[in-house]
Order: sequence, then C-alpha cells, then structure tokens
Amino acid sequence: MSTQSKASAEVAERLAQTRALMKRERIDAYLVPSADPHLSEYLPGYWQGRQWLSGFHGSVGTLIVTQDFAGLWADSRYWEQATKELADTGIELVKLLPGQQGPLEWLADQAEAESVVAVDGAVLAVASSRSLASKLYARGARLRTDMDLLNELWHDRPALPANPVFEHLPPHATVTRSEKLNRVRQTMAERGADWHFIATLDDIAWLFNLRGTDVSYNPVFISFALIGPQSVTLFVDSGKVGDEVRRSLARDAINLLEYTQIGAALREVPKDARLLVDPARVTCGLLDYLDSELTLVEGLNPSTLFKSQKTDADAWHIRNVMEQDGAALCEFFAWLEASLGRYPVSELTIDEKLTQARQRRPGYISPSFATIAGFNGNGAMPHYRASEAEHAQIEGDGLLLIDSGGQYLGGTTDITRMVPVGTPSAEQKQDCTRVLKGVIALSRAHFPKGILSPLLDAIARAPLWEEGVNYGHGTGHGVGYFLNVHEGPQVIAYQAAATPQTAMQPGMITSIEPGTYRPGRWGVRIENLVINQEAGKTEFGEFLRFETLTLCPIDTRCLDVSLLREDERKWLNDYHAQVNKRLSPLLDGVALQWLQERTVAV
Amino acid sequence: MSTQSKASAEVAERLAQTRALMKRERIDAYLVPSADPHLSEYLPGYWQGRQWLSGFHGSVGTLIVTQDFAGLWADSRYWEQATKELADTGIELVKLLPGQQGPLEWLADQAEAESVVAVDGAVLAVASSRSLASKLYARGARLRTDMDLLNELWHDRPALPANPVFEHLPPHATVTRSEKLNRVRQTMAERGADWHFIATLDDIAWLFNLRGTDVSYNPVFISFALIGPQSVTLFVDSGKVGDEVRRSLARDAINLLEYTQIGAALREVPKDARLLVDPARVTCGLLDYLDSELTLVEGLNPSTLFKSQKTDADAWHIRNVMEQDGAALCEFFAWLEASLGRYPVSELTIDEKLTQARQRRPGYISPSFATIAGFNGNGAMPHYRASEAEHAQIEGDGLLLIDSGGQYLGGTTDITRMVPVGTPSAEQKQDCTRVLKGVIALSRAHFPKGILSPLLDAIARAPLWEEGVNYGHGTGHGVGYFLNVHEGPQVIAYQAAATPQTAMQPGMITSIEPGTYRPGRWGVRIENLVINQEAGKTEFGEFLRFETLTLCPIDTRCLDVSLLREDERKWLNDYHAQVNKRLSPLLDGVALQWLQERTVAV
Repeated sequence: MSTQSKASAEVAERLAQTRALMKRERIDAYLVPSADPHLSEYLPGYWQGRQWLSGFHGSVGTLIVTQDFAGLWADSRYWEQATKELADTGIELVKLLPGQQGPLEWLADQAEAESVVAVDGAVLAVASSRSLASKLYARGARLRTDMDLLNELWHDRPALPANPVFEHLPPHATVTRSEKLNRVRQTMAERGADWHFIATLDDIAWLFNLRGTDVSYNPVFISFALIGPQSVTLFVDSGKVGDEVRRSLARDAINLLEYTQIGAALREVPKDARLLVDPARVTCGLLDYLDSELTLVEGLNPSTLFKSQKTDADAWHIRNVMEQDGAALCEFFAWLEASLGRYPVSELTIDEKLTQARQRRPGYISPSFATIAGFNGNGAMPHYRASEAEHAQIEGDGLLLIDSGGQYLGGTTDITRMVPVGTPSAEQKQDCTRVLKGVIALSRAHFPKGILSPLLDAIARAPLWEEGVNYGHGTGHGVGYFLNVHEGPQVIAYQAAATPQTAMQPGMITSIEPGTYRPGRWGVRIENLVINQEAGKTEFGEFLRFETLTLCPIDTRCLDVSLLREDERKWLNDYHAQVNKRLSPLLDGVALQWLQERTVAV
Repeated sequence: MSTQSKASAEVAERLAQTRALMKRERIDAYLVPSADPHLSEYLPGYWQGRQWLSGFHGSVGTLIVTQDFAGLWADSRYWEQATKELADTGIELVKLLPGQQGPLEWLADQAEAESVVAVDGAVLAVASSRSLASKLYARGARLRTDMDLLNELWHDRPALPANPVFEHLPPHATVTRSEKLNRVRQTMAERGADWHFIATLDDIAWLFNLRGTDVSYNPVFISFALIGPQSVTLFVDSGKVGDEVRRSLARDAINLLEYTQIGAALREVPKDARLLVDPARVTCGLLDYLDSELTLVEGLNPSTLFKSQKTDADAWHIRNVMEQDGAALCEFFAWLEASLGRYPVSELTIDEKLTQARQRRPGYISPSFATIAGFNGNGAMPHYRASEAEHAQIEGDGLLLIDSGGQYLGGTTDITRMVPVGTPSAEQKQDCTRVLKGVIALSRAHFPKGILSPLLDAIARAPLWEEGVNYGHGTGHGVGYFLNVHEGPQVIAYQAAATPQTAMQPGMITSIEPGTYRPGRWGVRIENLVINQEAGKTEFGEFLRFETLTLCPIDTRCLDVSLLREDERKWLNDYHAQVNKRLSPLLDGVALQWLQERTVAV
C-alpha cells in the first residue's frame, strides 16, 4: 500500500509529463524559477508554475528537472516546509547555503557538451540568463529561452488578474507623478539614456502614484512602463483602469496601452535609442523584443533608489500609521492574553483576530504579508504559515512568535513580537533576551552616510555570535511606503553582496529582525522597522542613525532581564516609555490596561 | 625669489625630462605605481621610481604624468605628508577615498581615442593591467606595458640588494619545507594545475623556510619560485646563498637558478602546462614571458592561505615572543616615564630606545616596520615617521602615539599604545576611551568560521560611529610569522572588498587597531594582535573567537574610565591581570615597578 499522498502523486505525474515533453523537444534540463515577467515576490497564479509542478508552496525556490533528477533549491527559511511538501514527489530538496553553489551554477557545472538547457525567458532575469548562457557556452552546451513547456501541460492554468487600478492620492501621496517623472528623467539624462523600460511593479506603482490588488499583499498591478524622449506609456489592461484614473493620467500626458502590447512597443524603440534598464529587474524574454543594435544603459532603476528614500512628509504619515498599527496590536494582544487558557486559541485564530484589529484602524487596506503565527516548534520555521490542514493550538508552556504587517494609505508595517504562553523556559528566555540585544545594538547604531548596508549586519549579530548562535536569514530588508514590504536597494545581511547600490541614504526604511531558530523546539524573532535619519556632520564625515518607527511593547515576560546590561535595560525602558506615550491616547479599556502593564520599566 | 626647495625643484626637473621622453615615445600618459616585480610593500631602492620621480616618500601612492597634468593618488593615511612633500613640485595630490575612482579608473576615464597609456609592465599586477587595458580598449585607447622610461632618466638608480639568505630553522620553523611543498602540490592538483609560479617574496620565504634582509622590515629576499610537475626551482642570485643553505635546499631537491633567469624559465614552461598563478600577485611583465597558448589556472597562491593559518606550534612560539616583546616595551615605557620632564626626549629618541629594549630580548632580529612615535599633531598622521629634519620634542601636555613592532625568530609583533604626557585633556581622554571601546568590542567578538573578515569591521567601529567619529584606515591587517607585518588574505576593513578569500580561518593573526585622528591636534590608536581560535561547534555552526596575543599595559591615565561600561572595565582589568601575570617574571627594577603600577585595576 502506497503512503504517497494525492498531492505528491499529482506532482510525480506532472514531472513524468514534463520529462516526456523534454524528450520530444530534445531538452536535457528544464529550469523553472519562481518568477514572473516583473520579477515580483508574490506571483499571480498564472506564473506559479514552479509551485504547480513541484508541489512546494514556499514563495522562493528553483526547480530543475532532468531525465534522471529533479531538484528544488531553497534557502534555510524553507527547509522544513520543503522537506514535508516534497516527500514522495521524486523531487529532492537541495539546501541553498550562503556562499555555496546555487541552482544556476549547478546547471552550468553539470551540463555536458551539446546538451540543451531550457527555460521560459519571460520569467528569467537578464543578469541570470547572461551568466548562465555564458557558463553553458564555455562547456559547449546551450541555453534556450523560448520554451514555456508548462503552457502545454497546465490545463487549468489561472488567468491573469483583472483587478481595478486606483490612485494613491494626497495627502498620503506626498510627491506628484510629474515630479517623480522629472526626477527619473533627470537621472536618465545623467546616465546618458533617452529611453527607460521598467518591468518591476513597485517601481511602476510608485512612479505613477497608482496602486492595485493583482497579487496578495503587495498593492501593485500587472503592468509595464516605457519612457521615451517625448512620451511616457503605461501598459495595463484597459479594463482595469476606470475613467477617473484614465483622466488623471491623461492630465499628466501618460499614454495607456494594453499590457500585451509591450512586446510590439519594445520592438519599435528606435535602434539609435540609449535605453536604461536594470538587468537584475527585467527578464531576457522582454529584452529580446528590442532591436539588437540598440544601446543598453544598464543600472539600477532610478525609481528604486528614489522610492527607498522616503520624504519627510512620508515619514510623518508613517509615524501616524505606526501609532494606529501599534494600537491595533495592543487590542489584539490584550484579547489574546485574556483568551489563552480560557478559550481555544489556534494559530489560525490569531491571524483572524489580528487582521480584524487592524481593519478597525483608519487608512488600513490589507495585510502586508501572510501573518506568521508559530507556536513553539512552528516558530522555528521562519516563514511558517498555519493552514486549515496543519496548525497548532496555543496551549501549555512556550513561546508564540507572531510576525505580521499591514498596508495603510500612509505606509507599510512589519513587526514581530514574542508572546509568552504559560511559563516560558529559562532557555527560551535566554534566546529572547539575546535576540533583543541584537535588536538594541543595531537600533542605536550610528554609521557613515553611504555605508554599504550589508556591512552593518555584524552589529546586530555580535551578541548572538558571542554565544554560538546565528540565524540563516538577513537581519533587515527595505520596506516600501504603502508598497512592497520587501524592497531594495538596501539590505542588512552579511550573506548579501555589498554592492555600491546597497549604500545607506537618509529616509530609507529597513527592518531589524534578528532571530534564533531551534528546529522542532521553538523560534524567536523580534522585529522593528527603523528609518535612516541624519545624525549630523562632524570632522569625520556625515553620519546617519536609525529612528525606530515600530511602536509596540516587547513582552518582558519572555526576557531574562538579568542578562541585559544597564545600557540595554535603559534602551528597553526608554522604548517602552515612548510606546506608552504614543499609543495610550489611541486605546481604552482592556487594551489600554494591557499597554500599561506591558510598558512598565524593568 | 622662489620659495621652492631644492627637493621640489629636482622633482620638477625630472617631470620635465619625463614629459620630453613621453613626447619622443608618443606616450600620452605615463603611469608609475609604487611596486616591484614582487608586488611588495617595501621596495628595494631599485624599484622606488615613483618616489624618485614624485618626491613623495609615503610607501603607497600612484603617480600619473601627462603633458599638462601630474597627479599623485594617495589614501587618507598619507594626505598630510603628501601635501607637504608635493608642495611646489607641480604634482597635485589626488585624495583617494574608499568607493571612489582610483588612479587607473581616472586614466581610463580621461583617455581619448588613439591615445597611448604606458607603464613598466614589470611592476604592474596582471589584474590591474587587464582591467586598465580593457577599459582603454573600450575607449579606443591603448596600454603599452613595455616602457621603463625611468631607466633612461634615473642615472644613479640603486643596484639590486645582495644580502645573504638564511634558513628559518626548527624549533621556530614548525613545518618542514617538504611538508609545505606537499601541501602546495596537493592544492595545485585540486585546482587542476601542474605548474605554479610564485613572485611574492613572503610566500617564497614561508614555503622554503628561508629568510633574508633585502628590504627593510620584511625578512624576505628578492626571488621567484617555479614549481613544475617534477621539479621545484628557486630563482635567487647565487652570491646570496651560502654553502649550508645550498646543501639544505639540495637535500630537498630544490634547484637554484639566478634571479635574472626567471624570464627564460617562464619561456620554457611547456604550452600544454596548466599553470597556477595569482593574477593579483604577479605582474603582467612576467606573465608575458609565458607561451600564449598555455592555460592559466588563476587563484590565490596556496601558500598565502597556508601561511596565514599559523600552526599550534607557531602560536606557542608567538605567545613567548609576545611576552618578550611586552617586557621590552615595559622597560622602554619605564625609561620614558622616568625621563619625560627631566631630560629632553624627542620622537627620534623614542625609536632608538625602543629598538634598544627589543634588542636585549632573545630571538629579536629587527623592527617589523618603521617606529611611529607621534606627539600630539604628529600623532594625527597615521603613518608619520619622525626624521632628523622634522621631529617634535616630547614636552608640555598631550598624547604620544607609539606604534612599533619587532621581528623575532618565533613571530612578528605590532603594537600601538598611547602615552600620557603631562596632563592629557578631557577630549583626548574621551578619544582614547572611545578607541579602547572599539578594541574591546572586536577583541571579544565571536563569529562564524569562514565569515568574510571585512564584515567584522563594524563591530569595532560602532562605539566610534555612535559619536560621529571614524578613521580612514582599516581596523585590522593580517600579520606573518617572522614574516611580513602586513599579510593577507584576511583584512578587517569595511572599505575592502569582501571577497571569498578573506574568509576567517583558525590560526590567522590579525591586528585590531581602531583610531581617531584630529589633524594638527592629536591622533589616537590602540593596537593589539589577536589570533583566531576555535570557539566550538553549536547547532548553528562552527564559531571562532579572538585570543589577544599582545601583552602590554594600556595606560589608564589616557582614559576617562567613567565612560567605560561595567563589562568593558572588566575586560580591561582582566587584560591587565593577564599582562601582569605573564610579564612580571621577565622584569625587575623600575620596569617591574612600572608594570605593577600600570596594571592596577580600575
């Protein structure tokens, strides 16, 4: 009797069909990245082919299929999940480790002379395609980028989303569309470019002050943008753009074309054009439309840097949003504390109740990512998501990790807090305290303006490393303004390449979220958002510091306060005094009571 | 009346002659790096052409001459010195800043189509030559590497050094030559190479257990090494190798050829050879001798990694050396303290007395670099060296910075300490205390084995950055074992590229030397050497920690102890207890008395 589940049997069948097609097309290896033509983090169903073919539901992973091997490359965040989901599918989990060979390098390494590797070029970044193609070429092998094998196999492939586009309006939109376009054009001129093609959805949403609901969590819409010397064109399905938005765009002389017309438009860019594109943020399938004689000016999309540097007016709105978000969290935590031990509370209930608390707050739009509520062992999976099929009841003793965030008209939030359930153990408290030390060390750091952000990571990790503890994910990611909860160009992660574009600039918002994960036992993470503020110019140069934006108590019942140094204790007490002062006017009843108790100085 | 000095008039005249030669040879720009065919830090006089032509005596700098411009690129360590020395020469100081355009990029940027840039290829690293040539090519310009213009102008050019080579013997040499060669051959095999060419003098000295005195401070000798499938050849002037060394090398089947025969030998390497070279550590002039069909296997010299990882036996000798070096320093500091205010003491006297104290210690060979003794304003020049012509008397109030080191048969030392003179000001004490906080923070750090060393720098700098202070040099450099006081591959500097070869491994010795420099006022630096020790394997991976090797009191009269946290104070007291315990058996009289006073807990 087979113990293979229905899901894994389906995956095995799809793999067999893929291999048959590969034989027919004389393809030796087929590469399926987790990507769409916009290289988005969240993919519309239409482009979730890697998930459909592998059965692995994690948001990042790369599948490679050959006739005698199928492997799914995933980083440490997903190992536990992938091990479960890939069981009995015939697909092997290949653990992706920082500094070690990735799936594309593996492909290049394995390729025999005359062999053919294929991928759907529409979803492979130019930078990746170039590097892979040249490595294959060096081995006498070849890369084909014109093969969407899935299209033939995937009969119930979802349609493209058709949700309406809406405007991000003042006061929350603090810079006009035409000012933003002017700044982009100025950078284009500085780089000697007269055309600019943008495929990334958050760049487009930011630039045009438009938002959408085409994918989960990120308020973006499926589109492309093409800026020429005389014109600006937005490519989006006409059914998604209402009259009001259409008139607003017309006032700024923005042309509208259908989403599917991008290929034709790229084909018509004159061959003497100098077109600015970000090779890391555009796919090779799209660039193949361009005249091969055209000059590419390669570099970061100007909008990526601009949108990372929030204006003072943005920051003002974000501080208000943080107060509302913090108040919602207090209401939720007060409910949770009153319910635990009295009523059944599961990881799923938490997601519901937390979302309800945020929904009561002004300006709230949606969650900014799927709530992670992981009790004990489930907390050890950094990207765990409870489901109807698998979730834990919150009962007994231990730690509950809750990582959640909201999209508001005036900003995007992302916060992780630890909740004590029953009596956390001494070891659990030590883990929480050590992680908090990492948060504190980095939160109060000052640093030279322009420092490459990956270089700051060691400051957060030093207190953990000192006791032989580490975590596989980065310490901090950039966060958008009513936009993607993960955005670049800055990143605080020692595993990341310290490229010039990761330089720290005023106004950037980044998370600080060290953690500790003990597989099968518990996980700890504490996360605040911080914004880069000018810290003054001295004879040694210009400095920046972090202003902590997130406002919510850090539960001291999870801490072993005796392990905190005096200065760390002072940081925590100052933070709680600030949280109390700013949230109490927005709360009453049990939530206010909970805030008062949870912000008492230690 | 001209105020131009004789020296600067000479430089101006040499520049004029160079420009005349450039015209004759149709060269538009001439590049003079600070380098020799071994890419050494200390150059024999024969290769000090950049110094001869520019008049700038700093150890690192790059000169570029065109018909209407002459520029000397130097990093922040040398700005003060270069400003003085370049005055009235017609050469402009170009300040080299981390992350900004260097001299080679400038050359490439300025080059017009059809123009010719020339350099003596014998002294330009392959990696630099390739990058420059390709950038020039892209602009339609050209790089010539066959021009040693200086040879024609420099009539009193010094001869090559001819000092004898000697053996580094057991017990201080802890691994035999044949074991080392076996390890190198093993790495060659792993990388698929059957030949290996080494031009770097410290690699050669380490590999063959030989030492020399051809240049200042680094105990190396001018040579090349070529390892073939069946043979090992050392290229060194036969007059430098005595009978005993010759017999010892013969026993290990090492061939000896003249230094000048390297070109012929490289020309004879068979064209089906796969030759391992480090493109960053060999010059293009040398590689030009090779058959162009030969396969280069490029990568770090295996000996560079091996020699950085000191054996346990090396570490044992180094700890002994540190005790002797620390005792010598105590004797010197006791003398200094007794003399200040009573007898005239100048920066020059300090160098003499310090060297004398070290000379009394067993196993001492020479200084490991030129002693830096800088009082107040002179201390603000990180690489200041007092000279007969310019030096300060130590009198009045302030801070004296002393950075010195010794070569011993059992290791190399490098230490910086601050000496209070009269009454240091409150601001001076704050600077010293902040720098000490940086030393402490990094000294006690643990970190994942294999972490890229530049990523650790922020740990040392955080306490300085917090108050808007920074320093232009790196925090730490690798240190050899009775070898170069600056060696790779690791480097703790946020300005350095975090390449895979900078990974931290057990046994590496690195300096920790944060600083603060207030030009014209004073400079502060505190420096210890540390060795990477295993710190255990946990569920999160393998960790390393630093063991502090340097043993010498850190004068607490330069500190504002009230600014130290409790844990920092404990580190300092523990360090001083250790220093007292290990140095007192080696001292007596006033030196012992001084040690006792300077290691009292605070």
